[in-house]
Amino acid sequence: MSEWEKNLLDIAPYVAGEQPDNDKIIKLNANENPYPPSPMVEKALAELDAKELKKYPDANGTPLVKLLAEKHGIGTENVFVGNGSDDVLALSFRAFFNSDKPILYPDITYSFYPVWCDLLKIPYKLCPVDENFKIDPKDYYAENGGVVIANPNAPTSICEGKEFILDILEHNKDCVVIVDEAYVDFGTYSAVELISKYENLLVTQTFSKSRSLAGMRVGMAFGSEKLISCLKAVKDSYNSYPLDTAAQTAACAAIEDEVYFMRTVMRVKQTRDDTAQSLRELGFKVLESGTNFLFASHPDFSAEQIFSYLRENGIFVRYFKKPRIDNFLRITVGTDEQMKLMCELLTKLIIK
Amino acid sequence: MSEWEKNLLDIAPYVAGEQPDNDKIIKLNANENPYPPSPMVEKALAELDAKELKKYPDANGTPLVKLLAEKHGIGTENVFVGNGSDDVLALSFRAFFNSDKPILYPDITYSFYPVWCDLLKIPYKLCPVDENFKIDPKDYYAENGGVVIANPNAPTSICEGKEFILDILEHNKDCVVIVDEAYVDFGTYSAVELISKYENLLVTQTFSKSRSLAGMRVGMAFGSEKLISCLKAVKDSYNSYPLDTAAQTAACAAIEDEVYFMRTVMRVKQTRDDTAQSLRELGFKVLESGTNFLFASHPDFSAEQIFSYLRENGIFVRYFKKPRIDNFLRITVGTDEQMKLMCELLTKLIIK
Repeated sequence: MSEWEKNLLDIAPYVAGEQPDNDKIIKLNANENPYPPSPMVEKALAELDAKELKKYPDANGTPLVKLLAEKHGIGTENVFVGNGSDDVLALSFRAFFNSDKPILYPDITYSFYPVWCDLLKIPYKLCPVDENFKIDPKDYYAENGGVVIANPNAPTSICEGKEFILDILEHNKDCVVIVDEAYVDFGTYSAVELISKYENLLVTQTFSKSRSLAGMRVGMAFGSEKLISCLKAVKDSYNSYPLDTAAQTAACAAIEDEVYFMRTVMRVKQTRDDTAQSLRELGFKVLESGTNFLFASHPDFSAEQIFSYLRENGIFVRYFKKPRIDNFLRITVGTDEQMKLMCELLTKLIIK
Repeated sequence: MSEWEKNLLDIAPYVAGEQPDNDKIIKLNANENPYPPSPMVEKALAELDAKELKKYPDANGTPLVKLLAEKHGIGTENVFVGNGSDDVLALSFRAFFNSDKPILYPDITYSFYPVWCDLLKIPYKLCPVDENFKIDPKDYYAENGGVVIANPNAPTSICEGKEFILDILEHNKDCVVIVDEAYVDFGTYSAVELISKYENLLVTQTFSKSRSLAGMRVGMAFGSEKLISCLKAVKDSYNSYPLDTAAQTAACAAIEDEVYFMRTVMRVKQTRDDTAQSLRELGFKVLESGTNFLFASHPDFSAEQIFSYLRENGIFVRYFKKPRIDNFLRITVGTDEQMKLMCELLTKLIIK
């Protein structure tokens, strides 16, 4: 190995879910929304003056920040936007977790948390969820350098209410608590209302799921002015203009079409609940979901077996070869037609 | 100060150039291109199917990487794309500069290098440029943890040739050498041809300047497979999908319209050289520029004075209140009309 190679960062490449380049495949493996973004997004992008792209974008996403602040009845100083929830969360880890004490999060949760900890040299400790994949708030009473809770949690789909979040906050006044609400719009309690009471609370959300804008990479955070200004300083020193003009335009249009948002979210929830019922009728154990996906296992067929069977039949779901969850599948809620097709295929496999 | 505040990252917010929200202002302070992006960009964005935005973007920017590889006659494994040059450079600092020895770069150069070093805890040592703002390659013979050279350099606008770059490379075989070519298309030697010979060389470029796409945030790096795969691993662990679908679409269209690119670059160069001559006739010292901006000072008027005078008259240029360069102005090359107006204003000030 040459001398310069010794100083390359030694990091294992992250392996993302398959993104098949085939329109016939039914993709239920990335928790994308089955419905397109609001027609207002299409209109706004069509009206975007390409000539303006010669100029740098608004560095702070000012119009988008304003719309988000209005929507939540908070100040613009309480809102931060970034290049997807991943960007916002990674910056937050960098900005807030500088203690020698370990940060705490569940053993089963979003797989990027340990990756960021490794990359940013943040000590962490996993708190095992119980046998029903529930998080025990008492695990987070321990001394720590920060807490991260995904609510709803992924890939379990389980959501918790206000009391749970308050319990965590009341026992963690000496560290920053991040509540990652990527899936919150599909029917879970949002902690945004608590940011005025808890200055150490940061809530993150995304346009990728409920707003159907995964392709535009827009995420946001809500918190006290102190947290948000620290986040801004880190962002500005890393990359002053992460959100391009088109992404800002699309996100603004999506926020403004509240009716479309409500309607598509409602549809996804209805399809989710119908699918959960159908799967249970086929013998599946399906966790109660507060998200746009289902976490399910079957007593007679291994998750890997069902995963391969569906894959052969043109349906991609997500299977994690990891301890504790390797007999579960994470199935993104698609359209009614897609779910029907999947359930028919599963019926053939299970009932024969 | 509460306990949790002690663990917030202590970082001074970066202050960017003014972005006036007024169309009458002539903005010559951000090195943006005065010409819009290629009409092909407008067409490609207009044809972008907004419905597809529900899906995550291609995580590796595959079509864009392919076009860039073809353009430079290199392999796709030698190309990396990111959310602007700033993103690509910051990730590169993280990926390649993990030595205890200081990395080296000039005292007068792109102001983000020290910011990234501070953020990422990378030791660094500044090598002073000479009294004519020239970089001495011998300064980079010293033992180090890496080398970063902006060529052309900013804000000086000075460019160096192949021999200079080879000198640096030949004396730095034990560290990664980054050549930041943000402005290279305006007439400077590009080191991309050297990546096959020097496995430790990374060359970064951007779509923000010569391709008029500052608003879309697209930057790229060229290097050996070893460097690029390390960069990819860091990127994937930080944010798997930084480049949104619209940005990828716009950049692909811009790369394909080579004729438009050549024409606008030629125009900017012509205007730059004409303006440099006019300024010299007014008594300005103007450094020889290989970029889309001019670095100039006047013996009788302080840079701050000229800056304020132009500002009052609706023209924003860049003034850095920093040691060694605080009597210089960085003036972005605009259209012929804009430059004429500026020179007329300066004539009034100087000749009276």
